[in-house]
Amino acid sequence: MRIVIDAMGGDFAPEAIVAGTIEAVKELDVNVTLVGIEDKVKAELGKYQYPHSRVEVLHAPEVVEMHEHAAVSVRKKRNSSISIGINLLKDPAYNAFVSAGNTGAVVAASTVFLGMLPGVDRPGIGLVIPTLNKFSFMIDVGANTEPKPEHLLQYSLMARVYLREVLGVENPRVGLLNIGAEESKGTDFSKEMHRILSERLSNFIGNIEANEIFSGKCDCIICDGFIGNIAIKVSEGLMESAGALIKREVKKDPIALFGALIMKKRLEDIKKYADYSEYGGAPLLGVNGIVMISHGRSSPKAIKNAIKAAKREVEHNLLSVMAGEITK
Amino acid sequence: MRIVIDAMGGDFAPEAIVAGTIEAVKELDVNVTLVGIEDKVKAELGKYQYPHSRVEVLHAPEVVEMHEHAAVSVRKKRNSSISIGINLLKDPAYNAFVSAGNTGAVVAASTVFLGMLPGVDRPGIGLVIPTLNKFSFMIDVGANTEPKPEHLLQYSLMARVYLREVLGVENPRVGLLNIGAEESKGTDFSKEMHRILSERLSNFIGNIEANEIFSGKCDCIICDGFIGNIAIKVSEGLMESAGALIKREVKKDPIALFGALIMKKRLEDIKKYADYSEYGGAPLLGVNGIVMISHGRSSPKAIKNAIKAAKREVEHNLLSVMAGEITK
Repeated sequence: MRIVIDAMGGDFAPEAIVAGTIEAVKELDVNVTLVGIEDKVKAELGKYQYPHSRVEVLHAPEVVEMHEHAAVSVRKKRNSSISIGINLLKDPAYNAFVSAGNTGAVVAASTVFLGMLPGVDRPGIGLVIPTLNKFSFMIDVGANTEPKPEHLLQYSLMARVYLREVLGVENPRVGLLNIGAEESKGTDFSKEMHRILSERLSNFIGNIEANEIFSGKCDCIICDGFIGNIAIKVSEGLMESAGALIKREVKKDPIALFGALIMKKRLEDIKKYADYSEYGGAPLLGVNGIVMISHGRSSPKAIKNAIKAAKREVEHNLLSVMAGEITK
Repeated sequence: MRIVIDAMGGDFAPEAIVAGTIEAVKELDVNVTLVGIEDKVKAELGKYQYPHSRVEVLHAPEVVEMHEHAAVSVRKKRNSSISIGINLLKDPAYNAFVSAGNTGAVVAASTVFLGMLPGVDRPGIGLVIPTLNKFSFMIDVGANTEPKPEHLLQYSLMARVYLREVLGVENPRVGLLNIGAEESKGTDFSKEMHRILSERLSNFIGNIEANEIFSGKCDCIICDGFIGNIAIKVSEGLMESAGALIKREVKKDPIALFGALIMKKRLEDIKKYADYSEYGGAPLLGVNGIVMISHGRSSPKAIKNAIKAAKREVEHNLLSVMAGEITK
């Protein structure tokens, strides 16, 4: 198996990307191709001891910046690490692509260069989120901000396969993210989605409210990409602000500081529990290739876990199982 | 000043409502009218010592249940505590209405019975949210799930008055909640809103992302009621789940438990900081009356603080200042 990595993507590229890739190569049975500005990537690689035969570097002279317009970047930068990396997947020797770069650009390039799975109109980004009851899978968290109902139906069908094949959840309970439990709640779109999912999914448990996301009430949460993106970013911001607040308050009080030191180990376990980087990247579902999108601020560990998650998708033949099930 | 309280609204009514009202009467210079099923309200009142001359009870034989359809409840239950209570505001002897009941019913009844302020088409629910930098004001958090651009513009104009007059923030910085910082990001609606707010508000700072809500980057966050509701409920759910997780983990480890006990006082301060009930209810802005919506699970303290917040609005002549400014 060979996984392609966008060496130039993310706020800490190429340093964090190369570091995480090397960790993955050492820890997992996987070959990698780092795509990016060759000099820079090789300079980073020079810092590590690793099995050279398993790491390939491919030069891509252009870099898509984090805030560049997605569609424009795909059209104008054919030689970016994203475009070159994704195009490699057309060759069966390359099995998956991982990027912590511009999300919109990865979505657009994947759609244009790989095309869609039969029966799927638009790609969606899924995300494994930690809950009190292990984890849930949320889709879409940002690829499709103004979806049609059939897009969300397709996401729910793909998510069901993903949960079963990759995450080991048989017959996952699916919920629709909405602002009330009753089917009469929400926008016209929410009501239509509730009706469609009720008709088409045997394991649809109805609307779930946003305060239930982390409760583990359902295995799969369906929402449009705008709402999904807001939901995960609110969580991210709140965890950061709460962490900063706790630090600020505890530092004011020597006794509390002592208490915090005693709890340190356990607090780190808790932090780890809530840490998205533990769960690897977010799979881009619906395109005809295995693409994993990592957080722009990915640490080496997050990159390693994204590679691990991509590898799991390849091992489970996700694409062919998914294609078979969606078109049924 | 006399404030009308929906004695039957909320998950813990009438107990918590009456308890909070009595606290308010004792602590604040305010008269109150409790509207609800007289026997039940009087039975609750019987548990307390309080200045009887300042507490009036008004019988309302019907109760709007928490999950009843809002518009139907207004049409069919003319004698509910919500309908009777809101209608009282037409009499200048009654200055404000506070309810922890069915939010949709309060919004609908306020709109129907009180009408809108001149220049405002639809009501919006504002909410004071704690941030690292004191607080921000978010509007709309659930009244108007499919607003037109002019509605959000009106919310931002009203919020500016509210922030200045009631919360003491001069020239508040206003941000539009979106999924990216650039004006090209988000839905067609987001882009149009960005353009309108840029043209019409002198202190518009542009889009803010959901992970910045708690950072204190802006004083006022504008969003549609669907997104706003999702954002606050995600926060609520995450805080609850994180709290439950911390408790669960700490209990496993005697040393961590000892640390937590040492930190208890400080952790309670932090909890208090993030506790919405400290900030009182959520003002319903745009209707021609002072209406405060409290959380369905309001504690007595939350009710007391909602009454306090309503009192502040009355004292600052919010309605006339707002009406004067919006129609300019």
